Amino acid sequence: MSLNRRQIIAGASLTTWALAQNSTSPIASAQAQSAPAFQQAPSFYRYKIGDATITAIHDGYGETNLENFVRNAPLEDVRKIAEQEFFPKDKVRITFTQVVIESGGKITLVDTGNGDSGAPTAGRFMANFKAAGFDPAKVDRVVISHFHGDHINGLRLKSGTAQFPNAEIVVPEPEWAFWMDDGKMAQAPEGMKGAFNNVRRVFAPIAKDLKFYKSGDEVAPNLIAQAAFGHTPGHMTFVLSSASQSLMLVSDITNHPGLFVRKPDWAVMFDMDAEMARQSRRRVLDMLATERMQVAFYHAPFPATGHILKDGDGFRLQPVQWS
Amino acid sequence: MSLNRRQIIAGASLTTWALAQNSTSPIASAQAQSAPAFQQAPSFYRYKIGDATITAIHDGYGETNLENFVRNAPLEDVRKIAEQEFFPKDKVRITFTQVVIESGGKITLVDTGNGDSGAPTAGRFMANFKAAGFDPAKVDRVVISHFHGDHINGLRLKSGTAQFPNAEIVVPEPEWAFWMDDGKMAQAPEGMKGAFNNVRRVFAPIAKDLKFYKSGDEVAPNLIAQAAFGHTPGHMTFVLSSASQSLMLVSDITNHPGLFVRKPDWAVMFDMDAEMARQSRRRVLDMLATERMQVAFYHAPFPATGHILKDGDGFRLQPVQWS
Repeated sequence: MSLNRRQIIAGASLTTWALAQNSTSPIASAQAQSAPAFQQAPSFYRYKIGDATITAIHDGYGETNLENFVRNAPLEDVRKIAEQEFFPKDKVRITFTQVVIESGGKITLVDTGNGDSGAPTAGRFMANFKAAGFDPAKVDRVVISHFHGDHINGLRLKSGTAQFPNAEIVVPEPEWAFWMDDGKMAQAPEGMKGAFNNVRRVFAPIAKDLKFYKSGDEVAPNLIAQAAFGHTPGHMTFVLSSASQSLMLVSDITNHPGLFVRKPDWAVMFDMDAEMARQSRRRVLDMLATERMQVAFYHAPFPATGHILKDGDGFRLQPVQWS
Repeated sequence: MSLNRRQIIAGASLTTWALAQNSTSPIASAQAQSAPAFQQAPSFYRYKIGDATITAIHDGYGETNLENFVRNAPLEDVRKIAEQEFFPKDKVRITFTQVVIESGGKITLVDTGNGDSGAPTAGRFMANFKAAGFDPAKVDRVVISHFHGDHINGLRLKSGTAQFPNAEIVVPEPEWAFWMDDGKMAQAPEGMKGAFNNVRRVFAPIAKDLKFYKSGDEVAPNLIAQAAFGHTPGHMTFVLSSASQSLMLVSDITNHPGLFVRKPDWAVMFDMDAEMARQSRRRVLDMLATERMQVAFYHAPFPATGHILKDGDGFRLQPVQWS
């Protein structure tokens, strides 16, 4: 090898070369057509917990105003955290990530996403689920954490079509008792009647086949339900344990972790009993930080899994390193 | 609707139901075959910076020992941070993410990954690049930040085959001057001779066609090179600006951000001039935090983009929210 300084100098001047490119010329435009469309890879992500395989499936997102999103903090304080977290201005982007568990020879889906009832930017579950190689007809069980629409609407399209025709549908007994109580529905404020009706829309056709669970039950192989009431009256979390590894599925113990993991005493507008939800949130986050247990977050940025660290008076979600 | 408490109680007891499942039965094993293989989605991720489209392409990872990884900190201190960051025990997983820029009608690739010269867990670039819809024959330019193997080996397979046959290859002039200097190679410690030889292996067949750039040059449409020497003698970063948005490609200003963004005074074993690298790192991280500029990190967990926040005496990388 004897390339040397002279050969460097003989190279074209890059500044000249760069300036010679005209990005608005017809030639440049024609060349641009060799570029692919703006399309993402299918949004699923697999990881192992002991012998179990987890697949995080992304259902997309919805965007809502930051104003009134946190019930018990001044908007200026919320804006300050949102800015530190690089949220879109005055908005919060709520993502939805469901979890498929392959364990004990069974395919279990925990929560179902928005189906065709959510924001136009949501409802991506089924496409991503199929891209990950799954067949909805082969799902053995669907476990529901609670009855908010973004968790149950994926069970049934607006047309009435069931999305997991051969799966056992497994729901929290206290959640069922609350939402199906016609007296509770009659007493509810007008703004909540839609949620009661939606529960009936989704579950009425399969009511006789539903299975019910309570805190402490094994809802799927190696998956134990744990009550974390407050967000809704029967809201459940889950711990998967396999070969000395564990994963906690925290459901809606928090909404966006950028706000409510950092500020666990803040209450999202969707928490039905804010004080009970706050206590559940603090208890679960404390446990996760102490045990260093991996966590799957329904409303964390995809792939929505990581670990919880103590950080001042709150916590921090450390996402897993992609591999 | 008149489902009520009696119907709940009529539902099968879930505890019994769950216990009836035998995860080791032949039936369970047969059912498991309806599950898909453990396969990830192709690892690419698109985002916009003004009118430019960025595609982050994942090349995989390599794992190395934590011991001796940081030159100027006691192993116990490094272990403590690594544990907080949930690294594998006593290991660091170094990921490689290249960036494709579609801007001004040109397809530009910045750095090329390991090709077939890296760890068995690396070398995924070309598969992911094609999955993202790109054709290597249609790449207009390849811009190289510096001459370490994990940035240049993707240009040419071990067999000698060029991977981007129609691209202009654009390299930093001071980097070329250092690595191609036979005197510098003769003076180098034995352990570094391989790196000098590798630079010759990759570039010798195309030396006469190379383009050279220096700090301040526009190396691709809207992409300006900025010197950040220290990691190597001619190490470069880049700022892409389009429609009042900006992205900084920081190349190897840090290795794993979990260590060196948090502790910017720590020196990774690969920094050739540790003190100069430290100054470059502090300067760039300070600027990024002050300007709130989005950043693409070669060695951050995929998709390897986010923002830098001040955190105590160091910084923190806040990953972007997937969408």
